[in-house]
Amino acid sequence: MNEKTFNDVVAHMKNSGFVYQGSEIYGGLANTWDFGPLGVELKNNIKNAWWKRFIQESVHNVGIQSAILMNPNVWVASGHVGGFSDPLMDCKACKSRFRADQLIEETTNGEVNPAGMSNEEMETFIRERGIACPKCGAHDFTSIRQFNLMFKTFQGVLEDAKSTIYLRPETAQGIFVNFKNVQRTMRKKLPFGVGQIGKSFRNEITPGNFIFRTREFEQMELEFFCKPGTDLEWFEYYCNACVGFLKDLGLKEENIRLRAHEQEELAHYSNGTSDIEYNFAHPIGWGELWGIADRTDFDLKAHQDTSKQSLEYFDQETNEKYIPYVIEPSVGVERLLLAVMCEAYTEEKVGENDTRLVLKLHPNLAPYKAAVLPLSKKLSEEAMDVFALLAKNFSTTFDDAQSIGKRYRRQDSIGTPYCVTVDFDTANDGCVTVRDRDTMEQERVAIQDLCEYLRVRTQF
Amino acid sequence: MNEKTFNDVVAHMKNSGFVYQGSEIYGGLANTWDFGPLGVELKNNIKNAWWKRFIQESVHNVGIQSAILMNPNVWVASGHVGGFSDPLMDCKACKSRFRADQLIEETTNGEVNPAGMSNEEMETFIRERGIACPKCGAHDFTSIRQFNLMFKTFQGVLEDAKSTIYLRPETAQGIFVNFKNVQRTMRKKLPFGVGQIGKSFRNEITPGNFIFRTREFEQMELEFFCKPGTDLEWFEYYCNACVGFLKDLGLKEENIRLRAHEQEELAHYSNGTSDIEYNFAHPIGWGELWGIADRTDFDLKAHQDTSKQSLEYFDQETNEKYIPYVIEPSVGVERLLLAVMCEAYTEEKVGENDTRLVLKLHPNLAPYKAAVLPLSKKLSEEAMDVFALLAKNFSTTFDDAQSIGKRYRRQDSIGTPYCVTVDFDTANDGCVTVRDRDTMEQERVAIQDLCEYLRVRTQF
Ligand SMILES: [Zn+2]
Ligand SMILES: [Zn+2]
Repeated sequence: MNEKTFNDVVAHMKNSGFVYQGSEIYGGLANTWDFGPLGVELKNNIKNAWWKRFIQESVHNVGIQSAILMNPNVWVASGHVGGFSDPLMDCKACKSRFRADQLIEETTNGEVNPAGMSNEEMETFIRERGIACPKCGAHDFTSIRQFNLMFKTFQGVLEDAKSTIYLRPETAQGIFVNFKNVQRTMRKKLPFGVGQIGKSFRNEITPGNFIFRTREFEQMELEFFCKPGTDLEWFEYYCNACVGFLKDLGLKEENIRLRAHEQEELAHYSNGTSDIEYNFAHPIGWGELWGIADRTDFDLKAHQDTSKQSLEYFDQETNEKYIPYVIEPSVGVERLLLAVMCEAYTEEKVGENDTRLVLKLHPNLAPYKAAVLPLSKKLSEEAMDVFALLAKNFSTTFDDAQSIGKRYRRQDSIGTPYCVTVDFDTANDGCVTVRDRDTMEQERVAIQDLCEYLRVRTQF
Repeated sequence: MNEKTFNDVVAHMKNSGFVYQGSEIYGGLANTWDFGPLGVELKNNIKNAWWKRFIQESVHNVGIQSAILMNPNVWVASGHVGGFSDPLMDCKACKSRFRADQLIEETTNGEVNPAGMSNEEMETFIRERGIACPKCGAHDFTSIRQFNLMFKTFQGVLEDAKSTIYLRPETAQGIFVNFKNVQRTMRKKLPFGVGQIGKSFRNEITPGNFIFRTREFEQMELEFFCKPGTDLEWFEYYCNACVGFLKDLGLKEENIRLRAHEQEELAHYSNGTSDIEYNFAHPIGWGELWGIADRTDFDLKAHQDTSKQSLEYFDQETNEKYIPYVIEPSVGVERLLLAVMCEAYTEEKVGENDTRLVLKLHPNLAPYKAAVLPLSKKLSEEAMDVFALLAKNFSTTFDDAQSIGKRYRRQDSIGTPYCVTVDFDTANDGCVTVRDRDTMEQERVAIQDLCEYLRVRTQF
């Protein structure tokens, strides 16, 4: 087996219908990406698996879909208007722009952690260490100014401060502001969770690494509300549940690690935060995949204070009123998709001189569950009936071009777990040959049993 | 049966967990709406039904997901930068703002159609007819200025013309710019379609009627590319397919009509356009639901001209190169959801003095396919096992509060097609009682057959 690299995975995704550069015919738009026919199926399957595990199968949890455009006071309360910003400085000589914290981290090879530094401390550090502009070598930086990462736009005809609204930088706040609505209309008792999948936007200065960090991305966030004092238990529960979910999706244990934040890394309000990191293909290596945080009552309290609306919960068992604590597992869809692709991408030796490229995706995540392949063009009509049968139940593709061997390889390379071949016996015995992507073994299956055969093998 | 009104439907959606006012605790944000736990399930089911019918089951069609943020030249080519605007005028006396065309239409009770008028003609008409400000009665309007409906934002640190980008006003252009990418990577031959579901944004001056017209909305668009000359056939095909889809979702034939645009209504490039209208609950009545247009080669040609990239297709059968024609069926998710809710909402007489509220949703669209109800709290643990079994396969809810009759009514009102009651016999006979939402008939079903029982009855 060859060592796969991140570039191999990216190149394959670009060439085979998973991802295209956004607005490509116009030269693109910095770091936007479009998901092609295979990419959107994979993405939908990942989102559906998350929804099934964390919403559908849980008796506690429900979903919502809140608007991307929200009242700007939401972002005042959440701290995003005041605090969601990067410390930027420009090189006066060449006009390049840098994040001061990244400049420090990179020029010290990660030995200095600027996380706790004030802007003044960073400016002093850069000046005293004589850190030069990485572009032109000059030592002439502007002072730091904070740049807010929220995209703004204007609602209505006027473009002024009063009409300024933001594209949400996270889906979580849409859940917090609906805490009472959900609790009341669904008559929920604690503990209960509210989950959401949706787009968020951050005006990152340095997006990058393909779809690892993009300005526009999709989040899957759960806010699990519970009684104060039970929070650490639920925090533990969700750390395990998220790791379990990743393993069930096919990520190998050795490529997953849970990193608990040290006391000094923790936000002042947090009772605990852990990141699940994934070992992306070389040279990316370990990177953050999923954040799980015990945020106590920080968010609901902030919204209660700013909105002047009570967000207290009345506990009928104890006759108490209190603001619930919240556990937040938050993961980006594109980043999880990238992890899944890194894990699945396999170059495998076949015989002496041949290699095949196989995407060993969990069958449930595969863009197509089955490919219907007539052995000869003469069988296309018969094969089309099989396609119609399967397509009623599964995402299915049809291919009658080139040799059967080439068609198998093509399906291997896009992760299709089952190839269904219609041959000259099919009309007589009502059977097709089903080939397994991973074992390459073939089995004769009656057409009338085919849907159930695939259903059992492709469920999550 | 009582006559339902639009207000009944809206009130029910707001009170029972389908829709909340966006950012409600902050006083809202003009005409934004959040979908609650039931609304998001219904919306997802509608999107999945569309995807299944128009993408999954079609051997021609594939899906994509393109970015909301695109290169601004996309909108130059598509005509949105130049032409996607409303004619606005202000009353100088009271500062109210109006759309001139709407002012004319409303004050003439629809007798005058301003669609073909220039701005000068509208100004003259308003002056000569002495049309007054509907707010204050003054006759003192500014002249008309065009207001572009695209939301703008700025990418990067600077806020200037060079960094201005737009929130897409439609998903269609994300398909057109990827025509070649999809064709090449998926090795597609004409005819083939590319579909997309995603958010779009329009800075409407007068959004309204609940979720009928909103600034932020979701579209389901298909661009079906075909050989010129075959387009009218495919146009016809998709008109029928869309109407058929709506009927299959449960909309009654009498509430659907297909209205072909007259020659003078047609865009200059269009070979034909039809709207599917739906008869929304009183007093809304007939409103546009789905637009199906034969757009010829207008869009691909515009992008080819502006981007200087060839968007021609090489036809291997005829050895010709040409730009394909395109059929575009385009429908808004929220509006379709509203039609589905208007259709399903039913107040039904039960016996002499009682009425029950039933949402007669297609079982596949229902937020919950089943509700598990223990007859007594003592049976909750047993019932929870049944919940766990069903929730592995379907969106399921659990309710052990109040009397069984009240719980049935609650499930009727949110459209749950099957109530599964666990009673004191269940432990002995391994069976549960399944109650049908519409007939209210009950049937004893073995737990081991329950998943298959529900699967058959809730599929689309
Ligand atoms: Zn420089
Ligand atoms: Zn006025």
